[in-house]
Amino acid sequence: MLAPWRTHLSAALHRNRSLVYAQYFQLATVRQDGTPANRTVVFRGFQQNSDRIQIVTDNRSAKIEEIESSSHAEACWYFPKTREQFRLRGTLILVNCESSDLELQAARQQVWANLSENARSGFAWPSPGRERSPLESFQVSPPDAKTPLDTFCLLLLEPHVVDFLQLRGEPQNRWIYTCQSNGDWIGRDVNP
Amino acid sequence: MLAPWRTHLSAALHRNRSLVYAQYFQLATVRQDGTPANRTVVFRGFQQNSDRIQIVTDNRSAKIEEIESSSHAEACWYFPKTREQFRLRGTLILVNCESSDLELQAARQQVWANLSENARSGFAWPSPGRERSPLESFQVSPPDAKTPLDTFCLLLLEPHVVDFLQLRGEPQNRWIYTCQSNGDWIGRDVNP
Repeated sequence: MLAPWRTHLSAALHRNRSLVYAQYFQLATVRQDGTPANRTVVFRGFQQNSDRIQIVTDNRSAKIEEIESSSHAEACWYFPKTREQFRLRGTLILVNCESSDLELQAARQQVWANLSENARSGFAWPSPGRERSPLESFQVSPPDAKTPLDTFCLLLLEPHVVDFLQLRGEPQNRWIYTCQSNGDWIGRDVNP
Repeated sequence: MLAPWRTHLSAALHRNRSLVYAQYFQLATVRQDGTPANRTVVFRGFQQNSDRIQIVTDNRSAKIEEIESSSHAEACWYFPKTREQFRLRGTLILVNCESSDLELQAARQQVWANLSENARSGFAWPSPGRERSPLESFQVSPPDAKTPLDTFCLLLLEPHVVDFLQLRGEPQNRWIYTCQSNGDWIGRDVNP
């Protein structure tokens, strides 16, 4: 059974579908020094038969180390057209080229296949965040769509708490959904 | 002297001015339990003669406690039209009704005066995040524009590191600006 907030999120995705950037959200994690990190990522759908949100990342990016030291994350997803915000708090599961779980590895392969050729090429680029050098080339031949590069990681966000705010309306509406230990979700009507 | 990234940020604000939500960004902080928090906030300009970004918040909101335990923050600001991202890492300074610094208090008053009447009224609403009750009213008389309500706080983000990414271009461009101990900024060209 789908989590109750999924209905609202699907509706928001549908109503904002004319904006390509409605597929982007901001993912916050915590650095090893205890400071927060925050960056824009692209929504790559839900993992099949689950409420886990799929994101992709490069094995060489700073967030890999951050996630290994703390897997807690909060996504903030603002939908401009409908003026709705979802805050999705949960934990991250990293699926890299070494992951032995067959189901997760299949999901990694599927997400890779669904990427654009441009997006796939980015995983063959020089190391992200390193000093730029004229000796390193960004002209790469497009990687095979069936075999993910080793740098390619699937990142799954498994939400535990979802805070949904509708800015439209007088007054605004806000609900907080919390996942119970038995997996059921409970929703509460709270002040905006 | 303005920080060198200010030029890029001003240009992005100008070129995206047709989108009201280009004034919104996501602010990440760390909760007392060490997990990240992330929410959309509205840019309220820079504090005069400084590189501090102004945000407003309610004294009763969860972020107040978070900031008191850890003042570290990272803003992630995505500009949809020009496809640019700014990640602004720094510390937060809270200016509430009790702050004794005259300059900061003047800034708080100015930002309050610049708010819309609707935005000001929100600070007279029932406590944000609390269970909604039909007994509490959201019908409030508009507060005086000259006297900020006690619930109204100005929040200043003082950036130390700014990571600027341009997604347009082949390949993309990325710079990291770091504030030195003498207050000077150093920029580096890095891989996207």
